[in-house]
Amino acid sequence: MRYDDIGFAKIDTDRARRTGRAEVIFGLGKTAEQVAEILARLAEREALVIATKVTPEQAAAARSALTEGLRAGVTYYEVPRMLVWRRDFGLLDSRDSAGVLSRVAVVCGGTADIPVAEEAALTAELYGCAVSRHFDVGVAGIHRLLDCAEEIRAADVVVAVAGMEGALASVVGGLVAVPVIAVPTSVGYGSSMGGLAALLAMLNSCSLGVSVVNIDNGFGAGYLASLIAK
Amino acid sequence: MRYDDIGFAKIDTDRARRTGRAEVIFGLGKTAEQVAEILARLAEREALVIATKVTPEQAAAARSALTEGLRAGVTYYEVPRMLVWRRDFGLLDSRDSAGVLSRVAVVCGGTADIPVAEEAALTAELYGCAVSRHFDVGVAGIHRLLDCAEEIRAADVVVAVAGMEGALASVVGGLVAVPVIAVPTSVGYGSSMGGLAALLAMLNSCSLGVSVVNIDNGFGAGYLASLIAK
Amino acid sequence: MRYDDIGFAKIDTDRARRTGRAEVIFGLGKTAEQVAEILARLAEREALVIATKVTPEQAAAARSALTEGLRAGVTYYEVPRMLVWRRDFGLLDSRDSAGVLSRVAVVCGGTADIPVAEEAALTAELYGCAVSRHFDVGVAGIHRLLDCAEEIRAADVVVAVAGMEGALASVVGGLVAVPVIAVPTSVGYGSSMGGLAALLAMLNSCSLGVSVVNIDNGFGAGYLASLIAK
Amino acid sequence: MRYDDIGFAKIDTDRARRTGRAEVIFGLGKTAEQVAEILARLAEREALVIATKVTPEQAAAARSALTEGLRAGVTYYEVPRMLVWRRDFGLLDSRDSAGVLSRVAVVCGGTADIPVAEEAALTAELYGCAVSRHFDVGVAGIHRLLDCAEEIRAADVVVAVAGMEGALASVVGGLVAVPVIAVPTSVGYGSSMGGLAALLAMLNSCSLGVSVVNIDNGFGAGYLASLIAK
Amino acid sequence: MRYDDIGFAKIDTDRARRTGRAEVIFGLGKTAEQVAEILARLAEREALVIATKVTPEQAAAARSALTEGLRAGVTYYEVPRMLVWRRDFGLLDSRDSAGVLSRVAVVCGGTADIPVAEEAALTAELYGCAVSRHFDVGVAGIHRLLDCAEEIRAADVVVAVAGMEGALASVVGGLVAVPVIAVPTSVGYGSSMGGLAALLAMLNSCSLGVSVVNIDNGFGAGYLASLIAK
Amino acid sequence: MRYDDIGFAKIDTDRARRTGRAEVIFGLGKTAEQVAEILARLAEREALVIATKVTPEQAAAARSALTEGLRAGVTYYEVPRMLVWRRDFGLLDSRDSAGVLSRVAVVCGGTADIPVAEEAALTAELYGCAVSRHFDVGVAGIHRLLDCAEEIRAADVVVAVAGMEGALASVVGGLVAVPVIAVPTSVGYGSSMGGLAALLAMLNSCSLGVSVVNIDNGFGAGYLASLIAK
Amino acid sequence: MRYDDIGFAKIDTDRARRTGRAEVIFGLGKTAEQVAEILARLAEREALVIATKVTPEQAAAARSALTEGLRAGVTYYEVPRMLVWRRDFGLLDSRDSAGVLSRVAVVCGGTADIPVAEEAALTAELYGCAVSRHFDVGVAGIHRLLDCAEEIRAADVVVAVAGMEGALASVVGGLVAVPVIAVPTSVGYGSSMGGLAALLAMLNSCSLGVSVVNIDNGFGAGYLASLIAK
Amino acid sequence: MRYDDIGFAKIDTDRARRTGRAEVIFGLGKTAEQVAEILARLAEREALVIATKVTPEQAAAARSALTEGLRAGVTYYEVPRMLVWRRDFGLLDSRDSAGVLSRVAVVCGGTADIPVAEEAALTAELYGCAVSRHFDVGVAGIHRLLDCAEEIRAADVVVAVAGMEGALASVVGGLVAVPVIAVPTSVGYGSSMGGLAALLAMLNSCSLGVSVVNIDNGFGAGYLASLIAK
Repeated sequence: MRYDDIGFAKIDTDRARRTGRAEVIFGLGKTAEQVAEILARLAEREALVIATKVTPEQAAAARSALTEGLRAGVTYYEVPRMLVWRRDFGLLDSRDSAGVLSRVAVVCGGTADIPVAEEAALTAELYGCAVSRHFDVGVAGIHRLLDCAEEIRAADVVVAVAGMEGALASVVGGLVAVPVIAVPTSVGYGSSMGGLAALLAMLNSCSLGVSVVNIDNGFGAGYLASLIAK
Repeated sequence: MRYDDIGFAKIDTDRARRTGRAEVIFGLGKTAEQVAEILARLAEREALVIATKVTPEQAAAARSALTEGLRAGVTYYEVPRMLVWRRDFGLLDSRDSAGVLSRVAVVCGGTADIPVAEEAALTAELYGCAVSRHFDVGVAGIHRLLDCAEEIRAADVVVAVAGMEGALASVVGGLVAVPVIAVPTSVGYGSSMGGLAALLAMLNSCSLGVSVVNIDNGFGAGYLASLIAK
Repeated sequence: MRYDDIGFAKIDTDRARRTGRAEVIFGLGKTAEQVAEILARLAEREALVIATKVTPEQAAAARSALTEGLRAGVTYYEVPRMLVWRRDFGLLDSRDSAGVLSRVAVVCGGTADIPVAEEAALTAELYGCAVSRHFDVGVAGIHRLLDCAEEIRAADVVVAVAGMEGALASVVGGLVAVPVIAVPTSVGYGSSMGGLAALLAMLNSCSLGVSVVNIDNGFGAGYLASLIAK
Repeated sequence: MRYDDIGFAKIDTDRARRTGRAEVIFGLGKTAEQVAEILARLAEREALVIATKVTPEQAAAARSALTEGLRAGVTYYEVPRMLVWRRDFGLLDSRDSAGVLSRVAVVCGGTADIPVAEEAALTAELYGCAVSRHFDVGVAGIHRLLDCAEEIRAADVVVAVAGMEGALASVVGGLVAVPVIAVPTSVGYGSSMGGLAALLAMLNSCSLGVSVVNIDNGFGAGYLASLIAK
Repeated sequence: MRYDDIGFAKIDTDRARRTGRAEVIFGLGKTAEQVAEILARLAEREALVIATKVTPEQAAAARSALTEGLRAGVTYYEVPRMLVWRRDFGLLDSRDSAGVLSRVAVVCGGTADIPVAEEAALTAELYGCAVSRHFDVGVAGIHRLLDCAEEIRAADVVVAVAGMEGALASVVGGLVAVPVIAVPTSVGYGSSMGGLAALLAMLNSCSLGVSVVNIDNGFGAGYLASLIAK
Repeated sequence: MRYDDIGFAKIDTDRARRTGRAEVIFGLGKTAEQVAEILARLAEREALVIATKVTPEQAAAARSALTEGLRAGVTYYEVPRMLVWRRDFGLLDSRDSAGVLSRVAVVCGGTADIPVAEEAALTAELYGCAVSRHFDVGVAGIHRLLDCAEEIRAADVVVAVAGMEGALASVVGGLVAVPVIAVPTSVGYGSSMGGLAALLAMLNSCSLGVSVVNIDNGFGAGYLASLIAK
Repeated sequence: MRYDDIGFAKIDTDRARRTGRAEVIFGLGKTAEQVAEILARLAEREALVIATKVTPEQAAAARSALTEGLRAGVTYYEVPRMLVWRRDFGLLDSRDSAGVLSRVAVVCGGTADIPVAEEAALTAELYGCAVSRHFDVGVAGIHRLLDCAEEIRAADVVVAVAGMEGALASVVGGLVAVPVIAVPTSVGYGSSMGGLAALLAMLNSCSLGVSVVNIDNGFGAGYLASLIAK
Repeated sequence: MRYDDIGFAKIDTDRARRTGRAEVIFGLGKTAEQVAEILARLAEREALVIATKVTPEQAAAARSALTEGLRAGVTYYEVPRMLVWRRDFGLLDSRDSAGVLSRVAVVCGGTADIPVAEEAALTAELYGCAVSRHFDVGVAGIHRLLDCAEEIRAADVVVAVAGMEGALASVVGGLVAVPVIAVPTSVGYGSSMGGLAALLAMLNSCSLGVSVVNIDNGFGAGYLASLIAK
């Protein structure tokens, strides 16, 4: 399965069926027509198609370009900028063999990180996880993070989203005993260098159990979280 | 739990007991005496103590500095350069509720990546996982990797270790439907910049389900793999 | 012969005649008038003039600025964003002494890499090569790449175009026994750093026979491929 | 006053007398003879001379090269690697007008950061501050840091020393209402890039009241802390 | 207290009351509505709310979005691009125990650095300091800087703002015996790399007593100056 | 004398008179009003005022904002994007004691480098030098450069302007026995990184007698050339 | 075929036979025993085994560790630091169908670049090419390079080796009409950054037909040259 | 003339005679035998041969390797680490037509910069200039620099040598009306990044008339100074 690649349809369909996974379209730099066309093609054989980094304008135009039938299954989520098509509005099933729903906690510090955090959270939900959101718990006000530590600890996997200095990943990593997926964001200015400072900080986390995905890659983190939580 | 920090003993012991996890000592830049002293202190309350990046010379000197009782429980693994102490030589238990042993596949391409790959593999084993090693399957000879694709797919989580251009993570990520932990290594020269080229490549992987740990951090990958596989 | 330099006319004409090579205009940051003017000047003495990185708007305006005679010989290729002028629509002759047409394979992974890949492919065709295109064969779906491995192996030289982590070059390099020209693209986000991650990965390729041109330099790769294939 | 510059003697003596400040010698890359010679020259007119980053070997050799009279006033501190000469063993006076001794808290996370932290702490003491040390309070075990939060809050200024991801500065900055001087250390490996990752993280701290000095510059932080605390 | 974080209200209010500090909103990348909403919420419990990096357009729109009551307390400062709300137009009290107003000197070299310098100066004033501005004293005309050296020396803390090569911090650091907060600005072109050259220069300052905040972070410097000057 | 700083007027006027030098305004990021205002102020006491990096729109607006008297003395040069005001249209006098006019050669390779090259050339002329321009002599067509080698050698100082790989500086440095001022330009794409590749290449020139100014700094090079040629 | 990987034996042998290519061992960071062991294993099925970056000490020790039979076929080349084993001392055959030996020209500028240049030259010879060496033709003395331009033009492919500013690749690229493989070397100091400056310059070459391999990768260039020349 | 290149002898001799210039050998990474051999070869046709960055051990060994006749003409300068051979101990003549000796001022700040500063100074002297040294005038003690401003102003060209933040170049550039050659040094630690911070600062100097050579390139600066001063 690859970001935005239609060509894999033939070989991946089998695996996709086996794994119950969906396809993703990376919206950045695509025209609304391209988004609509790829979505339509994927919808022929998938139960769930997700397009990320889609602006409201792209979303509106892409909807117009779809057939009425497809349009009915499409929802646009403004905060995480995701355009989602679901067949019969059904979600993928992510309960494990014992019937317990997988739990993912998504944590972020500043309001500016929320779009990426919500992208991760919605993605995990679309892949069938129960998601708890903790979006105002930055390390500069550590008590607030501690106040919800028990709730975070209850998750099977934690996604920690942070820009600027990215310290959240290390602190969260020290609080929980489950895998932590760190997502650096491009929030910041000056020497934050478009998220590179946060990325480096997260890679050098002194907490064990932390791994990192690319800058602003909320979808990747949410998807990986659902894989792990399963 | 933090790399090489004794001070956490008091607060972490409880959690460590709960989680059945062990302590780790980062050997790089430590004297053999420091390694021995920290090991001795941790051994008082842990069932498993691991020191990573320990040279044969450090290992020999550290053993000499231990009491006879501790020395008996210590093994030095030369390829991954790990010094391990186990109480009663018992391993941690990692079978899940259904009694199935967690399976981790560790994959690397070149012989020069083996020390880091073996560090990940041995760590996962010490934390109770069944590990399958695939150490000669670089992307330049793709058929060899494909020959063991089924075996790799049987794992609950895959660790992909690669230096130079780090392409292995993307290819493996495309072959499996489970989480892939990518470990860039500092193997290479010139513009590999001590592993930075591989690190960047892995962060930009076009395959979903891939996350990355720091350069040469085999221990971190092995530990995270055991967390995920559990 | 140099990117976009008219001044070389006098000394290069001789060599151009000898080598049957053409001139190239780098369109980025040029006004349509500048493109038209340089094209007109080069057309006086060349059989083939190529302008790269030309937007549809630049192309339309540049055509308007040409004399009717020149305009007739001009074609604009939208996907690779190339504006091409041919005297008598004839192509350069690239068959080798034995009368066999040189064969170039152009390979890329994602749809976003296609403009650069097509720039390489069309360039090689304009210089007289037979080109086979393989544009949906990323490493995340390795079987698809392997499915066309035989076709790729039939080429005299391969151009591998990839953004993000650039792993395609290494995998292709391992599949063929002919020279591989790797073209990193600026496709990606976050730590892809405008193609730098792919560039570094390709330079550190573990496969032999791989060399690299600048980011997004499809023309350079196509030209070099025709030189090698000759 | 400048790192290691003898020439300023003439103009700086006056200011030094006014401000009661001392001179510093940067030991890295100097011969023991150079250290001893500069120390001897500065001792003629100062009450306190500090040499930083001095190895035990340099220290022993430098002592031998001093006259017996000077040697008596010299102490070598092994952990912070500082060689200190004091006239009559008196410290500088740093009590403010109200007679209260200035209080500096020095905080660090890992044992590997202790040499730099101790350099800051000892420097602040030599300049007349009361220093409280908190050397085992990394962000991966946040409760331990919180346990001593009240003690840290009692200081007039806090020095936060951390390598790897440098998150400590942000967390401490959120806990106190006084200035925080962040000191990145070169502790770490791989993408820590000799302390650059920690430096960038600290510069991008989301906590207010935090400023940063150069990597491993414990002396500069301790000196600045004494300036602020005064 | 954290840049632009409303969530901290509950835990920070107490501390804010104790410390008499205010809240800050980082305007960059926010809509006027978001600025107005956060400002309104903070104004319920604070005496002073500051929004930084607010364009004139954002400011006008944000004012319109406020209730009339709040609007009355709002002032927009065009040069430092700050939107400030004060309850009863009262300033915070920053006189020390002996009744002396804290003095902050803000120094910058070029006219292009003035917005950042004025951001620092106004911030320090809003937090109750007496500020002296020296805005045309670059190191290329050293005598002018020396002409106001006595005035600068009279301050309790100095903020040195400079882009390009950032040399001002070192020169000022050598002139005064009080803490110097260096603010690199993104003024410059070519190899100034958005302020990184000035940042690095300031971190490597040969003068003692200098620490550094992030590029263009005038607010942070002004706030820290008021903390230190207190 | 400093880029765009009016404040220096008082102390620099004397030196300016002594040296017969003029003032410069850096136009990038300034409003037309600011350019006009600074120009008007400088024109009160200078014989020559230069504004660089001025767009045609800025130039037109700045002219409108000037008094009629000043407007008469203003010329806008479109290629180098310079706005110049001269009292009585007189040039500075740069003949040396023997009455020989100083000669500066300005060399560049590609048409895209011409704006920066012309900025250097016009600046040197405005400061009284005789300038020979060689604007189509890139290293990819070495014979053309050699054809004018004698002419270049006749200069007292050479300015070599080049983007992309910046090789021109080394080749020219090997051809002449006079100082060479290298000016990297931001011309290029991909890994040219805004001129950084050319800058590094020029700093590492294997030819002696070469020094470097900032990226695109044609004015600085022209000014320095006139200083050296004098 | 991959740098230093034994595991590929099974699948690569067939291709190796078909292509008549050999195996390579990357000596850097290997013990003499490892070099000897890999060499012995490869010698069982190859006609030619090459180890690169082998120090004289490694070479001597590796020879001692070989059986007498293998030792007889081994030659150590001190300048390029290559250890070569040939069965029956025969070279690979590289004449094309018309019976003409492939010609490779290897060009470098400074004496310090010779080891890398000779590594390329010897490699091409071992793979059956006729190699002409031009090792003292740097761009700072352009006439010397021009003196041998005809000889260089006679080659089927040119390898241009250069450290420092790497300008040689562009100049050579402008002189010839055949493919140029540029090899940056780590020769230089300061801002050459271990060859990165030369690498970037070569990637940004204004000459067409130039591609680049990794820093100091003489073997890769020689191998690719033989592939192209064939 | 090129760093360390013997091959240029034939073509450069003529120019060298015309220009009265000498040859230079870059000692770093050369064996004493190589230094001696190149020196001997150059001495056959030059009046002055300079080897830079020569350690005392290299120098002693190189002298031993020379014939007695050559050895007599050789002097080793320990501070600048230069080995110099002069025929008849005569210096090059650098007085201009009016019989006035060219004057070069070499300025540096810290004692650690002296080796590079002295390399520049001695080089300028060897090429016939009168040199005034100002080696203890860093910007942290600005008055000391101002005290010798008149002396510095008397020079025809100034070389400003500085590590750490490199601010000296800007301050000196503002004090004089002649060309300033800035030499960054690798003195510093942490974020000085081997001189890169100083290099960037100098390139971004706000003073006009400043150009920059490579890190630690004292010889290049001294040579260029003599070219300019002539």
